[in-house]
Amino acid sequence: MSKVVKGIAASNGIAIAKAFILEEPNLTIEKTTVSNTEEENDRFSKALDVAKGELEGIREHAKVTLGEEEAEIFSAHLLVLSDPEFVDQVKAVVTSEKINAEAALDQVSSTFVTMFESMDNAYMKERAADIKDVTKRVMSHLLGVDISDPSAIDEEVIVIAHDLTPSDTAQLNKQFVQGFATNIGGRTSHSSIMARSLEIPAVVGTSTITEEISNGTWLIVDGLSGNIHINPSDETVEEFKTKQSRYEEKKAEWAKLKNEPSVTADGVHVELAANIGTPDDIEGALANGAEGVGLFRTEFLYMGRTELPTEDEQFESYKKVLEGMGDKPVVIRTLDIGGDKELPYLELPKEMNPFLGYRAIRLCLDQTDIFRTQLRALLRASVYGNLKIMFPMIATLEEFRQAKALLEEEKEQLQNEGVDVSDSFEVGIMVEIPSTAVIADQFAKEVDFFSIGTNDLIQYTLAADRMNEQVAYLYQPYHPAVLRLISNVIDAAHKEGKWAGMCGEMAGDEVALPILLGLGLDEFSMSATSILPARSQLLETKKADVEAVKAEILGHATSKDIEAYVRNAFPMQ
Amino acid sequence: MSKVVKGIAASNGIAIAKAFILEEPNLTIEKTTVSNTEEENDRFSKALDVAKGELEGIREHAKVTLGEEEAEIFSAHLLVLSDPEFVDQVKAVVTSEKINAEAALDQVSSTFVTMFESMDNAYMKERAADIKDVTKRVMSHLLGVDISDPSAIDEEVIVIAHDLTPSDTAQLNKQFVQGFATNIGGRTSHSSIMARSLEIPAVVGTSTITEEISNGTWLIVDGLSGNIHINPSDETVEEFKTKQSRYEEKKAEWAKLKNEPSVTADGVHVELAANIGTPDDIEGALANGAEGVGLFRTEFLYMGRTELPTEDEQFESYKKVLEGMGDKPVVIRTLDIGGDKELPYLELPKEMNPFLGYRAIRLCLDQTDIFRTQLRALLRASVYGNLKIMFPMIATLEEFRQAKALLEEEKEQLQNEGVDVSDSFEVGIMVEIPSTAVIADQFAKEVDFFSIGTNDLIQYTLAADRMNEQVAYLYQPYHPAVLRLISNVIDAAHKEGKWAGMCGEMAGDEVALPILLGLGLDEFSMSATSILPARSQLLETKKADVEAVKAEILGHATSKDIEAYVRNAFPMQ
Repeated sequence: MSKVVKGIAASNGIAIAKAFILEEPNLTIEKTTVSNTEEENDRFSKALDVAKGELEGIREHAKVTLGEEEAEIFSAHLLVLSDPEFVDQVKAVVTSEKINAEAALDQVSSTFVTMFESMDNAYMKERAADIKDVTKRVMSHLLGVDISDPSAIDEEVIVIAHDLTPSDTAQLNKQFVQGFATNIGGRTSHSSIMARSLEIPAVVGTSTITEEISNGTWLIVDGLSGNIHINPSDETVEEFKTKQSRYEEKKAEWAKLKNEPSVTADGVHVELAANIGTPDDIEGALANGAEGVGLFRTEFLYMGRTELPTEDEQFESYKKVLEGMGDKPVVIRTLDIGGDKELPYLELPKEMNPFLGYRAIRLCLDQTDIFRTQLRALLRASVYGNLKIMFPMIATLEEFRQAKALLEEEKEQLQNEGVDVSDSFEVGIMVEIPSTAVIADQFAKEVDFFSIGTNDLIQYTLAADRMNEQVAYLYQPYHPAVLRLISNVIDAAHKEGKWAGMCGEMAGDEVALPILLGLGLDEFSMSATSILPARSQLLETKKADVEAVKAEILGHATSKDIEAYVRNAFPMQ
Repeated sequence: MSKVVKGIAASNGIAIAKAFILEEPNLTIEKTTVSNTEEENDRFSKALDVAKGELEGIREHAKVTLGEEEAEIFSAHLLVLSDPEFVDQVKAVVTSEKINAEAALDQVSSTFVTMFESMDNAYMKERAADIKDVTKRVMSHLLGVDISDPSAIDEEVIVIAHDLTPSDTAQLNKQFVQGFATNIGGRTSHSSIMARSLEIPAVVGTSTITEEISNGTWLIVDGLSGNIHINPSDETVEEFKTKQSRYEEKKAEWAKLKNEPSVTADGVHVELAANIGTPDDIEGALANGAEGVGLFRTEFLYMGRTELPTEDEQFESYKKVLEGMGDKPVVIRTLDIGGDKELPYLELPKEMNPFLGYRAIRLCLDQTDIFRTQLRALLRASVYGNLKIMFPMIATLEEFRQAKALLEEEKEQLQNEGVDVSDSFEVGIMVEIPSTAVIADQFAKEVDFFSIGTNDLIQYTLAADRMNEQVAYLYQPYHPAVLRLISNVIDAAHKEGKWAGMCGEMAGDEVALPILLGLGLDEFSMSATSILPARSQLLETKKADVEAVKAEILGHATSKDIEAYVRNAFPMQ
C-alpha cells in the first residue's frame, strides 16, 4: 500500500530505489567475572587496535570523499581511543572489579556519555556522540559481532536507519547509495551536512521510517520537499522520474553557468562567493563557479589538536587559499571559537548561555597572544592574493578599533622585521549582532566592508537559539526586522562607498535572493553547491523589479506576509 | 596605610566603622567511598533535621526584625530541605554511587544551582542562592564545622565577607551593622536587594576586600560610589562625615516629595511607577510615592509549590494589587518563566541557551491551559482597578495576535458565564527583543502600550549574557544602538497615539533619566526606593533641554561618548 511519510528535507534531489535498512547490531552484553584480568585487558587492547585501524581507514576515505574538514571527526574518534582517561579507566575497572572487558567498557562509556550529555554545551554533547560511536565499534570487536558496514553496499539502494553516525555516513558509497532517510536528526545535524557535501538526496527526522518499511520496500526520497513515498504507485514513480530528470536537467543547466558571470536579467553584476572551512575546499568552490571566497572560517586550524597552531602553520593555510583563488577576493575571518565551539587546550569557562558568551573577538581581544599570532600569519599571507580580513562578533565600535589597532601594531612590527606585507588588503567586520546592524552608519565610516552573518543575526534579533527545536519557529530569515536591519547595513555601507556582503545560510536561499538583490547586497557567499542555482536564478531576475518593491517588502508586518508576497511577485523555478 | 578598593555600589548611603570579618567556614569536602549507604543516608537525614531546627529559629527572629515578608525567605529554605526532588536525589546518589553524603550533597546542589542560575528570572536566581545557603548549612552539620553567626554582633561594625547568604543578611542587626562589603555579588544579588530594603549602605563585588583588611580595620563604605576606604585619614573621615550628613539631608528632602507629582523643571509630567513582585510590595511602592505599578511580575504565584496556582488564587492576588493601588495604573505581566525543573509540575526541557529558549509567551502560547487560567484570573480582576495586561518576550506580531485572541476568547467565555469583566483595560507588550523594537511601528498599530524591558533588550541587542562576568562589559545601557531602538519604540508609540514606558533597571538610572526624558518616555517603572531620587532629579531637569540635544545624543558612536556627553550636559547631583 502506498503511503507518504513526512520528514525534514536535508539534502536536495530525488532518489528512487529499494530500501536497505541499516540494522542496529545486537550489542547486548553480559557481565561476567574473569579470573585472568591481564588476559582480559589484552583482549580489550586488541579490540582497540582493530577499531583504530578501521577508523584510520575511514578517515582517509572520508578525506577523499568528504574533504579534510569533515574527516576531522574521525581524528576526534581516534583521540577518544587514545585518551588515557577513557582507556585506562576501562582497564582499571576490569582489574579492580574482575569483570569482563565488555561490561567494563559499557560502564565507563555510560558514565562518560551521561556526564557529557548532562553538560549544557553543544561541544560536550558532540563528545557524548563520539564516545557512543566509538564504543559501539570497540564493543562489536569485543563481541565478535559485525556492525553493519555501509561501505559493503553494492546495489542501488536508499539507506534507512534510526540515525546515521558520522562514521556510517562517511562510508556511504555514492555510486550505489541513491539517498537516505532517518528517524531522527535535523537540517543542521552532522549526517545532513554530510549528505549535502556528498550530494545524496536525504530526508531526516521522520520519527518512524524504520518501522514503516522492510528491506527491499520501494521508496521515493524527495529531498526537495522532505516527503518519502513508500510503495509508490506506477504513476507516482513516473511523476517523480519526471521531477528527477527535470532536477537533473536543471543541474546540467547550472553546470553550464560555471564560468559565466553572475548577472541579473537587467545586466547588473553581483558577486557569488563560497563559504569554505579548509584550504582543500577551494577546489569545490572553483568547480562550482565561485567568484571569490566570502567566508574562510579559520577554526579548523585550531580544532582536533592538543595545542594552538603556530604562526607558520596558519600562514601556510592562508597562503594556500589566497594563491588558490588567484586574484579573486578571499575574506578570511579571524578565530570564532568559544560559545558552542570549545578547544580542549584553552581553558574556557563553562557558560550558562554560550551563544551570548565569551567567544570570537571577545576572546581574541582578551587573549591577545592567540589573536596576534593569527594576525601576523594573515599579514604575512597578504602578499599572496586578494585578502580581506574580517573580525567576527563585533558589538561595539571600541572592539573594532581595538582589533584594528592590534592589526596595525603587528603590521608595523612585521615591517620593522623586514617582512613583506601588502598595503591594499581590506579590513571589515561580520555584522551578526543587532547593535552593530543598528549603528552600521557609525561603523561604515571606519570599516572597509561588512559581511552580514545571518545565522547569528537572526537568532539574536529574535532572541531564539536556532539549535533549540522548541523555538525553531522563531528562526525567521524574512522577519521584517531582520530585513530592515540588513537593509540598514547595506545602505550605510553604500553611503560611505563601502561594500556589503552576506555569509549566512540566507545568502543561498531562493526566497531571500530577490529580496537581498533589491536591498542592494553586493556579495552573496554560500555553500559552494548553492552557487550555480543562485546564478541561474539571478539570470532570470531583474534588479530594477525588486528595487521597485523594496519599500513594499519592508512594509509587511510578518515573515509569512513577506514570503508570500515575494513568492508571488518573483515566482521561483 | 590608606587605600581605596573599588566595588559595585549596592545600597545607597555611607558607613564609617570598624571591620567585622564574617569568616567563611572551612567546608572542604573529600569524596570517599562508603560501604554502608543506609548509615550514610541516616547521617544526611540527621544533618537535615538540625538545619531545619536552626532555620525555624532564624525565621522567627527575622519575623521580628525584618517583618513577615522578608522572613518568608526562610520558609523557602525550609521547603528546599523538604523537597523530595532535592533530598531524595542526594540519597539516590549516595546509594547508587556509594559515596559519602558530603560529596553527594555537593554534586546535587551544584546541579541545581547551575540550573537555576541560568534562568533569566529573579525568582530563579534567588532559588539558586537559597540552595547554596541551605547546602552550606547542611554541609556544616555533616562536617561538624561551625558557621558564623552574624546575629551575635553587638557593636557598631561594617560586616565584611566573601559573600553574604540570605540567612547571613537577614540576621544582620541594623542597630549595630552600619554597612557591609563583599568580594562577590552584583547589584541584583539577593544580599544587595536586602541591603536596600534594610537601608544599610553596601558595596559588593570588590573581589578582594576580605584579603585587604583584618578585623577592626577602620573603613568607610561608600554605597553611593562603590568605593571602600581602608584606614582612611582623619581628613577623609571628616569629608565622608559631611557627605554622610548631606546624604541624610537629601533623603529627608526626597521624603518630602512623596506626595508630589513627578514633573520636570519645565512642568512636564511623566509617570514614576514601581516594579513589584508580590501584592505585599504595594505598601513599599506607595510609601515611596509610586504613581502606579509599571510591572507586577506574576511568577511568585507559580513558585515554591507543587502544582499550578488555581484561577481563584491568582484572581485574589491580582485583585489585591488592583484594589491596593486604587485608580492608579497597574501593569500586570503574564507568566515569564523558562525551562526549569523548579516547577515540578511543569516538565520543561533543559536548554543549551536558556536566555534564547522556551520561556514566557513562547511557553504560554504552547501550553495554553496554563495561560488561559491566568488570563481568566486577570479578566475577573479587571473590574477592581486600573488594569493593563502585558505579554512578555514578544518577538513577532503573530505571537501578540495569538495571545490577544486567547484573551478575547476567555473574555467572551466569562461574559457568557455572566462574570463581570471591565471593558477598558489595556493590552500591551514588553519590548525586550530587538525584532520587536525594530518593527515597533507595526506593533503600535495593534497594541495599547509598550513597556521597554531594558535588562533583556540590552543583552539581546549586544548578544551578551548580562549574568556572565566575562562579557559584562558589553552590558551597555547607553550603547547608541540601544538608545536608537528605545527612541524608535517611543516614536512609534506616539505616532499611533499610544504610550511607552520602561520597566528595566535603566528606568531608575540617573544618567539614563535625562536621555529617556528627551526621547519622550511616558512612564518610568523602577524599584520603589529609586522613585523619590528620580522625582527629585526630574524636578531639576528641563525636558526641552534634553529634547533639543536628542539628535546629538543618538549621533554618538559609543556608549562612553554618550555617557560623557550626558554627564557633562546634565550634571548629576
